Amino acid sequence: MPTVGREMAPDDRLHGDLPLTDAAGAAEEVAADATVLTSGFGSVGDPKAVPEALAGSGRDLALTVVSGGSVGPAIDSALVEADAVERRYPFQARPEINDAVNSGAVAFNDRHISSLGDEVAFGGLVDPDIAVVEAVAVGEDWLIPSTSVGHTPAFVGAVDRLVVEINRAQPRELTAVHDIYRLADPPDREGVPLSAPGERVGDPRVHFDPEALVAVVETDRRDEPYSFRAPTEVDEAIAGNLRGFIEREVERSPIFEESLRMQFGVGSLGNALMGALADADVGDRDLVYFGEVIQDGLLDLLDDGDLRVASATSLALSAEGQQRLFADPERYAEDVVLRPAELSNRPELIDRFGVVAVNSAVEVDLYGQVNSTHVGGSRMISGVGGSGDFVRNSPLSVIALPSTAGGGDVSKIRPMVTHVDHTEHDVDIIVTEHGVANLRGTAPRERARLLVECAAPDFRADLEAYLDRAGEEGHTPHDLDSAFDWT
Amino acid sequence: MPTVGREMAPDDRLHGDLPLTDAAGAAEEVAADATVLTSGFGSVGDPKAVPEALAGSGRDLALTVVSGGSVGPAIDSALVEADAVERRYPFQARPEINDAVNSGAVAFNDRHISSLGDEVAFGGLVDPDIAVVEAVAVGEDWLIPSTSVGHTPAFVGAVDRLVVEINRAQPRELTAVHDIYRLADPPDREGVPLSAPGERVGDPRVHFDPEALVAVVETDRRDEPYSFRAPTEVDEAIAGNLRGFIEREVERSPIFEESLRMQFGVGSLGNALMGALADADVGDRDLVYFGEVIQDGLLDLLDDGDLRVASATSLALSAEGQQRLFADPERYAEDVVLRPAELSNRPELIDRFGVVAVNSAVEVDLYGQVNSTHVGGSRMISGVGGSGDFVRNSPLSVIALPSTAGGGDVSKIRPMVTHVDHTEHDVDIIVTEHGVANLRGTAPRERARLLVECAAPDFRADLEAYLDRAGEEGHTPHDLDSAFDWT
Repeated sequence: MPTVGREMAPDDRLHGDLPLTDAAGAAEEVAADATVLTSGFGSVGDPKAVPEALAGSGRDLALTVVSGGSVGPAIDSALVEADAVERRYPFQARPEINDAVNSGAVAFNDRHISSLGDEVAFGGLVDPDIAVVEAVAVGEDWLIPSTSVGHTPAFVGAVDRLVVEINRAQPRELTAVHDIYRLADPPDREGVPLSAPGERVGDPRVHFDPEALVAVVETDRRDEPYSFRAPTEVDEAIAGNLRGFIEREVERSPIFEESLRMQFGVGSLGNALMGALADADVGDRDLVYFGEVIQDGLLDLLDDGDLRVASATSLALSAEGQQRLFADPERYAEDVVLRPAELSNRPELIDRFGVVAVNSAVEVDLYGQVNSTHVGGSRMISGVGGSGDFVRNSPLSVIALPSTAGGGDVSKIRPMVTHVDHTEHDVDIIVTEHGVANLRGTAPRERARLLVECAAPDFRADLEAYLDRAGEEGHTPHDLDSAFDWT
Repeated sequence: MPTVGREMAPDDRLHGDLPLTDAAGAAEEVAADATVLTSGFGSVGDPKAVPEALAGSGRDLALTVVSGGSVGPAIDSALVEADAVERRYPFQARPEINDAVNSGAVAFNDRHISSLGDEVAFGGLVDPDIAVVEAVAVGEDWLIPSTSVGHTPAFVGAVDRLVVEINRAQPRELTAVHDIYRLADPPDREGVPLSAPGERVGDPRVHFDPEALVAVVETDRRDEPYSFRAPTEVDEAIAGNLRGFIEREVERSPIFEESLRMQFGVGSLGNALMGALADADVGDRDLVYFGEVIQDGLLDLLDDGDLRVASATSLALSAEGQQRLFADPERYAEDVVLRPAELSNRPELIDRFGVVAVNSAVEVDLYGQVNSTHVGGSRMISGVGGSGDFVRNSPLSVIALPSTAGGGDVSKIRPMVTHVDHTEHDVDIIVTEHGVANLRGTAPRERARLLVECAAPDFRADLEAYLDRAGEEGHTPHDLDSAFDWT
């Protein structure tokens, strides 16, 4: 394990001859129509002072903002409310940016996480001008990320102007969790030299061209903590069904003979499902996490010794989880690795390690098509994020969701989804509080029967009626006249 | 390059003590409800005599048939017409199987090609009983595939009973084109040790447990050759637009500085587009093919010296193309490599080599969702095949299609597709005879404007009218009441 963080004093954050300035000064480095690449993933580790200074500058801004993943209020609330954002990639989850995306005020393009670094580096998506990233330490040609790595390594490599926010509220000891490794560009790219989810193959520093560093700003601001709701009865029932399925599957499949590698989607349900894993009977198998974010549920598993290692790109914790981790970052660094998002979410690694993927969705249809992003076909509520990386490349891809929304008024199992983010070709298992639909090897007509059984009882007759209307003609019988009648 | 093929005499096909029998005898090894894994990809290299013997046996069969990819008439016509097939994976393209899938007589599950070998090997999809594969030579514990490799290496590894058809109509010298390399299972899998599309890292033989070989049958039957229609004016116009786009893109993108790696979908349009590449001005860049099938268009490029190397899993040629290749297989083997389908289509390699993917589709919608498999939502016309592997993992994914079908009566650019096989998150470029829509970085509303311009002029006003009805609300404005009115 690298020991850079251990060799340095905890307040050893600024190294060498650095262009120190304040947030307003750094904000002036950003042109009014700039394409700005930022740190931040899982709403943590994002720059805070410079975006807020831009938002409050009174300048007429039309920025393109590309982050690692989701970011906090400085960018996706303050900067958006200041009408400063014209285009936005690759993910958004806050109300202000969401409204702007739906009204058309912000042009948003919903990208897979794993390939964003390449898309930025190779051009075609954007022509980047400047990167603004948060770090716990910086030197003349290196920085150490804070609570997320995200696409920071790719981003600082793609620009010739770089602004760094050194956030003294983020423990310097976070250094010990980072493993930064960069791939060569195609066609000279090689396989990732990572043979186990917890292995380290890089170093904690992100390196950059020293000519690029135009401003360093000191801040002292915690990430906005997550709040997870307590698991509901429905969450518990879904977790119970998932647990039972996993227990059977580890006995059945040769690839889980010695260990079980898992990923969970972000959010309260994902967090509750992680927690439920602690009770699963997986024999003496090692339990390993290989995903994009580390949530509180994983800290619990680590604390209890139920989880051997966790690899991700972000520490998306509650206030309590932050407190726990920040009280002893070096202890957690023994079992926790943060990687660039292009590695945490890499198809090659999800496949190589045989990661079981557990993600939620807005709704699924009777034939296994999955909608993760839109309601009513038009209105986006979130982005696809990393779910597409895991759903597509996992040897066992589970969509876990409650059977209803709106207090039971809306079935999340529908005749036809109004937007497809994950196709029938990618989804293996669908779990609700009512059961487990094992779609592997099934024809669409068979899937429909399995999925009716996973719907809430109140909606089963309506779903059956739809199947009657759809008739017997075609591999995937649909009645297009009434497919969206429920929407 | 391995030289096994060169050291052996051309009629040196049967080695050692083999259980030789006739097709009827071998067919008796197949239980009435067996799950049968077969060779065959791109409709070539499939077993012919044993499936036909099964079809003609008069037995009451309910088989599950899993092939590498598409297969010829012995399986997907004769065996299906004999009502002998109950379930079928992963791809189908012939009228008889297609009708059976659409009537529900055959339960079909449409799988991605790259992961099928794993799905069969790890269980969950099927519980395989026996493999029936075509080869050009066989020994007591090895065989050499014929005109396709497909999933034969994974399949023979997954069964304890194996039937081999030795087809004397397939040149023994095909040995020289094969490069068989197998990956370990997760979590001990490692990166594929392949650093260039034309490299060889395995050997031409597929190895198996000698206990498994229950029957060897000699046959002498050519694959049914492909017939490609001559390129139409529309094909030429699409090819011209694609060529122009590619010429600009190789100048722009750093990953194409020295070479251009490409994949084309199977079919007459794909074949015509390959041909058009010969006229593209890509400077002194090496042109390399990394795809799943080698069609006549590629032989032309190889013959003319325009293509340096071609890697695939199948030789899907016309009668003339077969004649050309079979006249001098060893000459083509200098530039042509056939790999297992799990490598020809591997996400890791498509990404690593930066392969430009060019695939066709049934229809696309105004927001970039793509339907490759169904008409009218219900009726399947083909499978997703390998297109999902390439569309999803290519750094530059192109969907090329004519703007209309049905002699101009039907627009292939539609308000909303009735089935989604490739999502807006995966598709970069859409090309028709009317233009190129560069969707990278665009919000859905912007995509709609670009795609209207690629539609046939007669349909543009209707598409604009749909966008008016869809209104301004939502990230992806749709009018669900009329989204399928055209269908």
